[in-house]
Amino acid sequence: MSTVRTTAELRAAVAAGRGAGPVGFVPTMGALHAGHESLIRRARSECALVVVSVFVNPTQFDDPADLDAYPRSAERDVAVAAAAGADLVFLPEAGELYPPGDATRVVVRGPLTESLEGAHRGAGHFDGVTTVVARLLNLVGPDRAYFGAKDAQQALVVRRMARDLRLPVEIVTCPTVRDADGLALSSRNARLSPAERERALSLSRALGACAEAIADGRLRHGAEAADAGLRALAAGGAEPEYFAVVDPETLEPAGPLEGELLLACAARVGDVRLIDNLSLTVPQFTDEPEAATREDRAPTAAT
Amino acid sequence: MSTVRTTAELRAAVAAGRGAGPVGFVPTMGALHAGHESLIRRARSECALVVVSVFVNPTQFDDPADLDAYPRSAERDVAVAAAAGADLVFLPEAGELYPPGDATRVVVRGPLTESLEGAHRGAGHFDGVTTVVARLLNLVGPDRAYFGAKDAQQALVVRRMARDLRLPVEIVTCPTVRDADGLALSSRNARLSPAERERALSLSRALGACAEAIADGRLRHGAEAADAGLRALAAGGAEPEYFAVVDPETLEPAGPLEGELLLACAARVGDVRLIDNLSLTVPQFTDEPEAATREDRAPTAAT
Repeated sequence: MSTVRTTAELRAAVAAGRGAGPVGFVPTMGALHAGHESLIRRARSECALVVVSVFVNPTQFDDPADLDAYPRSAERDVAVAAAAGADLVFLPEAGELYPPGDATRVVVRGPLTESLEGAHRGAGHFDGVTTVVARLLNLVGPDRAYFGAKDAQQALVVRRMARDLRLPVEIVTCPTVRDADGLALSSRNARLSPAERERALSLSRALGACAEAIADGRLRHGAEAADAGLRALAAGGAEPEYFAVVDPETLEPAGPLEGELLLACAARVGDVRLIDNLSLTVPQFTDEPEAATREDRAPTAAT
Repeated sequence: MSTVRTTAELRAAVAAGRGAGPVGFVPTMGALHAGHESLIRRARSECALVVVSVFVNPTQFDDPADLDAYPRSAERDVAVAAAAGADLVFLPEAGELYPPGDATRVVVRGPLTESLEGAHRGAGHFDGVTTVVARLLNLVGPDRAYFGAKDAQQALVVRRMARDLRLPVEIVTCPTVRDADGLALSSRNARLSPAERERALSLSRALGACAEAIADGRLRHGAEAADAGLRALAAGGAEPEYFAVVDPETLEPAGPLEGELLLACAARVGDVRLIDNLSLTVPQFTDEPEAATREDRAPTAAT
């Protein structure tokens, strides 16, 4: 395992290892936890060379205080990455990714970036994500890049960007890793007090309860399910930002609930902003309620 | 020499040829002339594999009529590229570069894209250029990409984009190729009538006369030189859009004339919009006029 800091060192190390098989890449903002470890292990199992980057990207933070508060632990991160199977850890200074006079942005437009996190963190958030990920992908040149499903929208936006820009890379999304009580792992969890950590469970619990009610047929419409989710978040002691029931590919709000869904939410617990999500497939009910049935059967020529 | 139309064919052909040495790439919008041929020959002299693309990129035309009128001659282009030394001609359908649901743009902001052509063709022009060039570079994966100095601003913008996005490619700018009478070669020249072609000479003549007056010390300030250039364009029978005297790296307007300069102009001749430019180094004059000297010596603390 080696660490590199410059573009030249990185390119030389990747070029030396490329012949042996696929190059896997796990971009991170550091503060590595078991979620990141699962991405690195997945890359290890599929690739000949595994590159991990640790870079807290300033352009994706709309809130300077949030950027300042983001945990940094480079030395520990290198050890964690090595133990999980990384061959190479890239620890760039900002100048390696944002050269002097930098004037270029990679932007994805439309509902994919404007909804959910885009609506709540500001339009610039995903511009920062796509801009830095495009650069990292160009620097590393991986065959596969690994992203966590916990940031479901980010993974969708990055996949869209990579596809549109014709980058020769496969974007792999890996399952969210959770603590035993259901809390989705996040670098931000380290900032929660014990009491806040208990309240933070309201995210996964609200998602789980909403998914169960949908699976049971108790909730049959997106707006109704989103309302129930928001109430559950607040009841659990979080300050809800949003609870959305959406199409898992387009992120457009779901109407009558059917097929594949993504439930996604964001809430504040104390000073910490947390997000979580859950994918589910709605079972086919034989006793569809009148309202949903009527809507489904509305003549399409009129829409 | 072979032609490919799909991403898969292109990648396979480039991968097969990559081992032998550098991959050179000449992106074109077709209607190949001696200017393009010089780029292809230059690539041939420096690279083991030479790829030429022919794609009229819709996203860089603000004017649909201009896009429709752009000359297309794929069969002839393939023959010209082959004769100039291309190994591979990529003739993509639009869907290879703009996949269904495409939502991504690569944008360079600031004076580099907002001045000159950006100001006159609309802000979207260079967004279209950088978006398509980034995609082509990702598809081909060249070591070197060749651009003509005739589109000086385009070459600067592409170099900025490639540097910022950390693309592992060297952007090479090659000298403008001119007809014997000085007219810069352009695919658009084919649309000029004999009388219009004569008037089109006013671009290269205005640039030459302005450069001569600067070299002689008759013009000593950017604004003065730009005015003289505009008058010369109009006197030669073109309808001037702009005549600019700028820093050749930043494209910012020049004040007192010294060091390296770029003279750039755009004008309409009949229905055809033409551009041209000239680089020059201002000689050091021993008899600097009072005004320029005073300006140079203004106390910097006050600015």
